[in-house]
Amino acid sequence: MARQVRAEQTRATIITAAADLFDRQGYEGTSLGDIVEHARVTRGALYFHFAAKEDLAHAILELQSATCRRLARDTEVRGRTSLEALMRLTFSIARRSAEDPVLRAGLRLATGGARPRPPLSHPFTEWTDIVAARLLGAAEESDVQPDVDLDVVAHSLVCFFVGTRVVGRSREPAARQPRRTAEMWQILIRGLVPVTRRARYLSLAARLERETAPV
Amino acid sequence: MARQVRAEQTRATIITAAADLFDRQGYEGTSLGDIVEHARVTRGALYFHFAAKEDLAHAILELQSATCRRLARDTEVRGRTSLEALMRLTFSIARRSAEDPVLRAGLRLATGGARPRPPLSHPFTEWTDIVAARLLGAAEESDVQPDVDLDVVAHSLVCFFVGTRVVGRSREPAARQPRRTAEMWQILIRGLVPVTRRARYLSLAARLERETAPV
Repeated sequence: MARQVRAEQTRATIITAAADLFDRQGYEGTSLGDIVEHARVTRGALYFHFAAKEDLAHAILELQSATCRRLARDTEVRGRTSLEALMRLTFSIARRSAEDPVLRAGLRLATGGARPRPPLSHPFTEWTDIVAARLLGAAEESDVQPDVDLDVVAHSLVCFFVGTRVVGRSREPAARQPRRTAEMWQILIRGLVPVTRRARYLSLAARLERETAPV
Repeated sequence: MARQVRAEQTRATIITAAADLFDRQGYEGTSLGDIVEHARVTRGALYFHFAAKEDLAHAILELQSATCRRLARDTEVRGRTSLEALMRLTFSIARRSAEDPVLRAGLRLATGGARPRPPLSHPFTEWTDIVAARLLGAAEESDVQPDVDLDVVAHSLVCFFVGTRVVGRSREPAARQPRRTAEMWQILIRGLVPVTRRARYLSLAARLERETAPV
């Protein structure tokens, strides 16, 4: 195995181990020693990739951002409405969060007050921008009632989604997340979508819940 | 000053100092030494009241619970509808959180995975129970559309409110919280309240926002 490839694998192993610990015991509650032990690497290997714990948090926030942007791109398919793309994005993130410690740690870092280094935006800012763009599309497609303030709704939707995950993480198994995401959408659809289009999106929410539920 | 009174004051000083630090730098990121220094008490005074950091977290969760139950009682006034009482409760908590480090620390402990000792319930469980009782009253008063699942909405409302505070705490000054609470209610009222009663509650949300905004 080429040295370059092995180094990349070690780096990924360290990030995953750090994410798992940050998610379960918090950033402050995790030492570099814990990470070395959990990742089963040497302290030298860790320091080769990361000078400080802060760099690990930054790497996790970077990965989270890249994943969210990729999922946003993947759920935007020609022929799909903007609202459907947005709904699919939230279900994708909910499912990925159940599987991937990096996304869970990213959320915990974001809610714990992490301040990403520029040019990386704060996750909540980035998510609000993504949601606002989708809602603008949805409004143009007449899927949002005309008297709705889109920026306000974008912020509220991020709050609602973050709250669903924050409340869920301490009270319920991660497998419950698709259910909670569907419940969030039931309320949002009733509040935002014109009456004539509601049935379509309510059944989409139910379908996406089934599709993203663990088998 | 009687010894009993002085001891109570010292205990309150220590709790406030601990809450302030837990809120700003997290539970794991705060040592007993930090608390002693911040409270300007001796280590002996701290150990007289609290055997371990865990006992401080428990005391904060207990105070938070007592405050929320008191605010729930205070906002339930004869002649007020259940929905108005619920709306007033959320605005009261939003305002109190801006002023009181104990409520902010309580939320951070709750979102950070604190597990309160019985008989104290988890804050999210307690809040969901309070909201569910108010929503049941609101449904009986025909302020909630009949096809709404009240337990689902109670859970969603807690998620939405927690998310509003979690997202807000890392991105905005606490004074913005009444605005965000009003925005949350605008969406919930549109989604849950029968059309004929919406105007009344939308203007109540606007009024409560003005009343709870800092002068």
